[in-house]
Amino acid sequence: MAAPRAAALGPEPGSSTQTSHRLLAYSDALLSIIATVMILPVAHTKIHPDQKLGESVQQLLLAKIAVYLMTFLIVTVAWAAHVRLFQVIEHIDDVLALLNLACMMIITFLPYTFSLMASFPGIPFGIFLFSVCAVVIGLIQAVIVAYGFYHPHLLNQQIQESENQNFYKRHILKIILRGPVLCFLAAIFSFFFIPLSYVLLGLVIVFPHLTRVITWCKNKVLGRRGEEEEHHSLETFTFYLSEPLSKERVEAFSDGVYAIVATLLILDICEDNVPDPREVEEKFHGSLLEALSEYGPNYLAYFGSFVTIGLLWFVHHSLFLYVTKATRLMGLLNILSLAFIGGLPLAYQLTSEFAEKSHNEIEAIQVSCVITFFASIFQFAIWTTALLNEEETLHPFARYGGKEHAFMFAKLALYPCVSLGAFFLTCLLSEFSTAIFHLMQIVIPFAFLALRIFVRISLTAIKSVMSLSRRKVVLLEEEEACLSPNETLS
Amino acid sequence: MAAPRAAALGPEPGSSTQTSHRLLAYSDALLSIIATVMILPVAHTKIHPDQKLGESVQQLLLAKIAVYLMTFLIVTVAWAAHVRLFQVIEHIDDVLALLNLACMMIITFLPYTFSLMASFPGIPFGIFLFSVCAVVIGLIQAVIVAYGFYHPHLLNQQIQESENQNFYKRHILKIILRGPVLCFLAAIFSFFFIPLSYVLLGLVIVFPHLTRVITWCKNKVLGRRGEEEEHHSLETFTFYLSEPLSKERVEAFSDGVYAIVATLLILDICEDNVPDPREVEEKFHGSLLEALSEYGPNYLAYFGSFVTIGLLWFVHHSLFLYVTKATRLMGLLNILSLAFIGGLPLAYQLTSEFAEKSHNEIEAIQVSCVITFFASIFQFAIWTTALLNEEETLHPFARYGGKEHAFMFAKLALYPCVSLGAFFLTCLLSEFSTAIFHLMQIVIPFAFLALRIFVRISLTAIKSVMSLSRRKVVLLEEEEACLSPNETLS
Repeated sequence: MAAPRAAALGPEPGSSTQTSHRLLAYSDALLSIIATVMILPVAHTKIHPDQKLGESVQQLLLAKIAVYLMTFLIVTVAWAAHVRLFQVIEHIDDVLALLNLACMMIITFLPYTFSLMASFPGIPFGIFLFSVCAVVIGLIQAVIVAYGFYHPHLLNQQIQESENQNFYKRHILKIILRGPVLCFLAAIFSFFFIPLSYVLLGLVIVFPHLTRVITWCKNKVLGRRGEEEEHHSLETFTFYLSEPLSKERVEAFSDGVYAIVATLLILDICEDNVPDPREVEEKFHGSLLEALSEYGPNYLAYFGSFVTIGLLWFVHHSLFLYVTKATRLMGLLNILSLAFIGGLPLAYQLTSEFAEKSHNEIEAIQVSCVITFFASIFQFAIWTTALLNEEETLHPFARYGGKEHAFMFAKLALYPCVSLGAFFLTCLLSEFSTAIFHLMQIVIPFAFLALRIFVRISLTAIKSVMSLSRRKVVLLEEEEACLSPNETLS
Repeated sequence: MAAPRAAALGPEPGSSTQTSHRLLAYSDALLSIIATVMILPVAHTKIHPDQKLGESVQQLLLAKIAVYLMTFLIVTVAWAAHVRLFQVIEHIDDVLALLNLACMMIITFLPYTFSLMASFPGIPFGIFLFSVCAVVIGLIQAVIVAYGFYHPHLLNQQIQESENQNFYKRHILKIILRGPVLCFLAAIFSFFFIPLSYVLLGLVIVFPHLTRVITWCKNKVLGRRGEEEEHHSLETFTFYLSEPLSKERVEAFSDGVYAIVATLLILDICEDNVPDPREVEEKFHGSLLEALSEYGPNYLAYFGSFVTIGLLWFVHHSLFLYVTKATRLMGLLNILSLAFIGGLPLAYQLTSEFAEKSHNEIEAIQVSCVITFFASIFQFAIWTTALLNEEETLHPFARYGGKEHAFMFAKLALYPCVSLGAFFLTCLLSEFSTAIFHLMQIVIPFAFLALRIFVRISLTAIKSVMSLSRRKVVLLEEEEACLSPNETLS
C-alpha cells in the first residue's frame, strides 16, 4: 500500500485531484493527540500524601480513568471508521480536505463532552451533546462518501472499475453510520431513561467486534460450510472491503500516541517545577541547585517514563518491520496496548509523589509494573496473533523457524518478563522495592543493546545441547546398529 | 526521495538493517511537540481583567514569549541537524535506533533548561545545564556518525560508493558539532561572564544562516568568479551535501506542529472548563446549561483557533503539493511561519478573556490579526521564494503561467489580505471590532470553498477585459494600418 501511494505523490496532471497521503497523516496526528488527552486530568489529580493510595485510587481516580478509557476507545472507533472511509476514497480535492477538517474539529471536541458526562452523570446534557457531535460527524462523513461517489475519479481503483458501485457505497455508509445511528437513539433516550443511553454508547465501542464475534460463533456452531458458501457468493465484492487495516495508518496513529505520551510529563515539569525566584531567595538562600533538588523525583519520573515508552516504541517498531498486514484483531490488540501506554506517565508520576518506603510508594511501583506488563504483553499478543496466520501477516524472517524469529521473541518477551519479575520481587522484598524498580529501569536499555549477543549465545548453547543429545541418540543407534548384525549373526 | 524510501520498506534480506522511515517520523513527532510546548506557560499566564493588556504584555509575557521563541528556534536547529544526519545515514539498525532515542530524550529536556534560564537570568546554572545537554546531544550524534561510517552499508548509496568517505564524515561532523562546540564555550563562560554565554547561544541559532549570508555577500562583493571556481573544485563532493532539506521531513515536522497547536486549547478546556457539580447546584440552581454558558467565549476561542490553524494547514498542504524541493530559505520561512502559528491559540485565548468592547479586547483582537497575518505572509513568502527558482522547486502547474498558478496565488493571499483588512477595520471601527473578527472567522472557510469559482470568474473577467483592450489596440492598429497606406498614398 505504501509504495504506490508514495510513488503517486504530487498532483495528477489535468485535474485538481490530490493524493490523500498527507491529509491522512495530519488526521492521524490529531486523532492520536485527542485519544490520549484525557490522561492529563487523571495525572493532575492531587493525592494527599497522608491518604492511602488504595482508597484514593478507588474513589478519586476511578471516574477520571473511566473517562480516559472511554475517550480513548471512542476515538479509536472514529479512527477505524476514518481508515475505512479513506480506503474507499483514495484521492481528495479541496472540498474533501475541508470537509475532513470540519470532521476532525468535531472529533476533537468529544473528550470535553465525556468530561461533562463524568462530572454530571445524572444530567442528560452531557450525553446529549456527545450524541449530537457523533451524529454530525456521521453526517459529514456521509457527505464525504456521497461526494466521492459523485466524482468517481476520487475512488479506489478497484471500485472505480467495478460495475457494482452502489454495493460499495451502501457497505461503506453502513460502516460509517452505524455508530451515529446508535448515538441518535442515545440522544433521544437521554431525556427519558439515561441508563439506556449509556448502554447504547457502550454498544458503539463494542459493536464492530461484537458482530465479528457473533458471525464467528455462528460459523463455529453451524459448521464451516455456511461461511464458505457466503464467502464464495460475495467474493467478488468483499475482496476489497474485508481488507485489513492499512498498516501505514496503524503505524502513524501509534507513533502519534507514543510521541504525545512520551512528552506529556515534560509539559508538567516545564510549568510546575520551575521554582519561584522569591522562594529561592528566602527559603534556599539563593541556591538554585538546592531548590531544584527538591524536584529530583519528578525528573526521575520523566526520564523513567520516557525511557520505558521509548523502548516500547522501539519494540513496536521492530515488530511492525516484520508485519506485512495488520488484521483487525491485531489492530484491536494494538489499541489495547496503546491504552495502557497512555497510563504510563500517570504511573511514573505516582511513584515520584510519595515518601520513600511508605506503603503508598510500594503500591505505586506495583501499579507501574502492572501497567508496563499489560502494555508489553499486548504487544506480545500482536505477534502471537500474527504467527497464527503467519503466511499472510508476517515477513518470512519473523515466522517460526525464520532467521530473526528467536531475536524477535526475546525482544517482545523482555518487558513482560522484567515487569512481572519486578512486581513479584517488590511483593517479596518490599523494603528494597524502590531500588529494584530503579535498577530495572537502568538495566533494560542495556539489555536491549546486548540482546542480540545474548540471543546468539543462548541459541548456540541450545543447539550444542540439542546436537549433543542427538549425537548420543545417534551413538546409541550406531551401537545398536553395530550390535544388531552381531546379534543376528549369533 | 519519498518513493525509493517507501519502496524499500521492510527489512533487507540478509542483515539486521532497517529503513529509517518510521524512526524519522517518530522523531519528527517528538520534536514538533517539544518545539511548541513552551507556548503553554505563555497561554496559562493569568492576566487580571483590570490590568491594561499593553502593560501586562510588556511586563509579564515578554520573558515567556522569549523563552517560547528561543525554544522553538533551538529545537528547529536541532531538527535541521537531525535531518542532515539522517540524509547521510539512510539505514538504521537497533543500536542506531536506541542511540537516536537517547538523543531525543535529551532534546525533550531542553525546554525546561530554558525555563530555568528565563526565571533566573543571573544564575549560571540554567545556561550551564542547557549547554551540557547540547554537548551531550552533539556527542551522541557524533557516535551515531562514527557508527554509521564504521558500518558503511548503513550510509547513503552515493557516499557508500564514493572513494572520499572521510570528506563526507568530516563535513557532517562539522555540521553536527558546531552547535555543541559553541555551547561548550558558553558553559565555560557561564561561570565568568554570563552575557557572553547568551551571545554564544544566540550564535547557535543564527550560525547556519550567518555563514550562508556571509558567503553570499562575499561572492557579491568579489564578483561571481570566485564562487564558480570554488564551486567547480568541490562539485564532485558537494553535490549531495548541498542538497536541500528533505521535503518529506519538512512536511512531517509541519504536520506535527499544526496538529499539536490545533489541539492545545482543548487540553485546557477539558481540564479547566468543566464546572464543579457543587457550584452548579448552589450558583445556577442545578442548571448545567446556564453554568456552561459562562464558558461560551472559551469554546468560541477553541473553534476559532482550530479553524484558523486547520485552514492554514490546508494552505500549506496545497502549497507543498506543488513544491518538488524545499530549499534552505524555504525551510527557514516555513519555520518562521510555524513559530507564529504556535502563538495563535494564545491570541485566541486572549480574545476570549476580556469584557466586550473594552480597550483590552480590541488590542487582543488586533494581536490575533497580526499573528495570523505574519503566519500567512510567511507562507506566501515560501511560494514567492519558490517562484524565484521555479524550474527546480515547483511543479509546472504552479509556475508562472501554469494551470493552477492563479488559484494558488488566491489561496495564499486570502489570509494575509483578510487579516490585514480586519486589523485596519478594527482600528477605524473600534466599536464593531468583535463583530468584524467573528464575521471574518465565519466567512473564511466558505471563501476557501468558493475560491475556485471566484478565481475562474475573475480570470475570465480579466481575460475579457484584456481581450477587449487588446481588440481596441488591434482595432486602432488596424485603423492605423488602414490609414497608413492611404497616408502613404496621399
